[in-house]
Amino acid sequence: MPPSGRNAGLPPDPFFSGAGLDRADLMRGDPLALEKLKGRDDGLELVWADGLPAIGEDGRLQWSAAEHPDLFLGLDGDSPRFSAHQPAVGDVRAAFAMVGLLDPVEAPIYAAALSLAGWHSRHGFCASCGQPSDAVRGGWSRRCPGCSAEHFPRVDPVVIMLAEHDGDLLLGRQPHYPPNRYSALAGFVEVGESLEAAVARELHEEAGIRVSNVTYVASQPWPFPSSLMIGCTARAATRDLAIDTTELDDARWFSRAEVEAALAGNPDAVFLPPPRTAIARTLLEHWLLEEGR
Amino acid sequence: MPPSGRNAGLPPDPFFSGAGLDRADLMRGDPLALEKLKGRDDGLELVWADGLPAIGEDGRLQWSAAEHPDLFLGLDGDSPRFSAHQPAVGDVRAAFAMVGLLDPVEAPIYAAALSLAGWHSRHGFCASCGQPSDAVRGGWSRRCPGCSAEHFPRVDPVVIMLAEHDGDLLLGRQPHYPPNRYSALAGFVEVGESLEAAVARELHEEAGIRVSNVTYVASQPWPFPSSLMIGCTARAATRDLAIDTTELDDARWFSRAEVEAALAGNPDAVFLPPPRTAIARTLLEHWLLEEGR
Repeated sequence: MPPSGRNAGLPPDPFFSGAGLDRADLMRGDPLALEKLKGRDDGLELVWADGLPAIGEDGRLQWSAAEHPDLFLGLDGDSPRFSAHQPAVGDVRAAFAMVGLLDPVEAPIYAAALSLAGWHSRHGFCASCGQPSDAVRGGWSRRCPGCSAEHFPRVDPVVIMLAEHDGDLLLGRQPHYPPNRYSALAGFVEVGESLEAAVARELHEEAGIRVSNVTYVASQPWPFPSSLMIGCTARAATRDLAIDTTELDDARWFSRAEVEAALAGNPDAVFLPPPRTAIARTLLEHWLLEEGR
Repeated sequence: MPPSGRNAGLPPDPFFSGAGLDRADLMRGDPLALEKLKGRDDGLELVWADGLPAIGEDGRLQWSAAEHPDLFLGLDGDSPRFSAHQPAVGDVRAAFAMVGLLDPVEAPIYAAALSLAGWHSRHGFCASCGQPSDAVRGGWSRRCPGCSAEHFPRVDPVVIMLAEHDGDLLLGRQPHYPPNRYSALAGFVEVGESLEAAVARELHEEAGIRVSNVTYVASQPWPFPSSLMIGCTARAATRDLAIDTTELDDARWFSRAEVEAALAGNPDAVFLPPPRTAIARTLLEHWLLEEGR
């Protein structure tokens, strides 16, 4: 079975979405077990470079002897893996480009370490009372010594979706994209919303269309800084677009042939597709397969 | 089409999962438009009772003239709806029981208001530098006057899942459940995890089983305090259980006939199912329908 437990017969699992390390959750809450793990000779610590987990020439993460076992990432077989606290990412665009070099098997470990370390660097104080808080549970939560509030790492769910109308797909451009790249529209899920309601709201806000038949496809953690991308398709009731130009440079309908040419890397393709690390690419691959059935 | 845009042919949408108000996102970022809305004669403000949105005898939310329009909930047609900041929920169990009285059409508004107001009450300080922060964007974010960090309301994704083995379903009991209630297992999605990886990890941690074929079914916002419940099914590779007794009182396999009897409210049923407001109930109803096909 695939490590993530996903359905068979679909395109490759999205990047970052595998099982990663055994997180050994029970050990986090056991201070004695954690101390033992930190004292182990075979414990390893993630190497960082420029605020990101370092990627070797072989595409693998780099590890050294565990000297700052602040965050307990989990077990690799029997061997404990740690990370130091590290500063947040400076240049997110450079980081996006870098992850393309990463071995997909290592990607979930990269994502967990980067999101966890980044969360600590941005959440040193108790949001409830303002006092400095302390990392506890092997770095998987922070506790306030003043008001005793416990805070857990944020995971921010984002819906990312393809809308279909009469065999065509809606794709859009964010201002920071490389020239001519089009990708799936996306937005954060808000409090009080189901995934389906969020998909419908975002497509209406950003493109002015109403949709039905929202269908889940796949999910992906995205560690810039800590999103959970939830990929869906939806059926558009209408074709006319009203684009929110504060969010998007452009949005357009593309034919199946245009999407196929773009994914095949055809030099005549009318747009540049999202990179292999993006779940938007998985959504496009999945849509082509489903359409072909 | 259903308000949430979900697939046809499924059981009723989960409670809390409808479209709710028009959130009018563009107005939040426009201080002049917000001021105009706050000054409108037809603006209404949610009534609270005991730290929760008040529910009338007709099952509807209660509204009064807008005197403390701190949080802009959205538009009902053309009429702006607000809420004051309110203290967090005292007795969560009492709140669970109360929501059963609520009209399902109003439930998404209840969920958004409760999660949003509760977030403000627990996040008055900047997690990045410890200074008191200010509500901005009609209450949809907080900004730190010291370090300029902007903080958005938390939405915590939770996977909730049925594992199936040879036609039987795995259900478990949390210590606080009423006697003999069994429901779907659940757990928070962690940083660096896909939904599928989280389902596999939680079922292994809590029940000791390995699963494949994780399939998404439905989602539901759950405002105690701000979860996004993501309902799935999975196929168990093995039947032997190793129960995490720090999380669960018990977990057992139930036959299709036992699940049917429980959902039908049969007095001879061997367990009490989750209430209609819980997505676990939707998962069970969906599973019976799918199995019956």
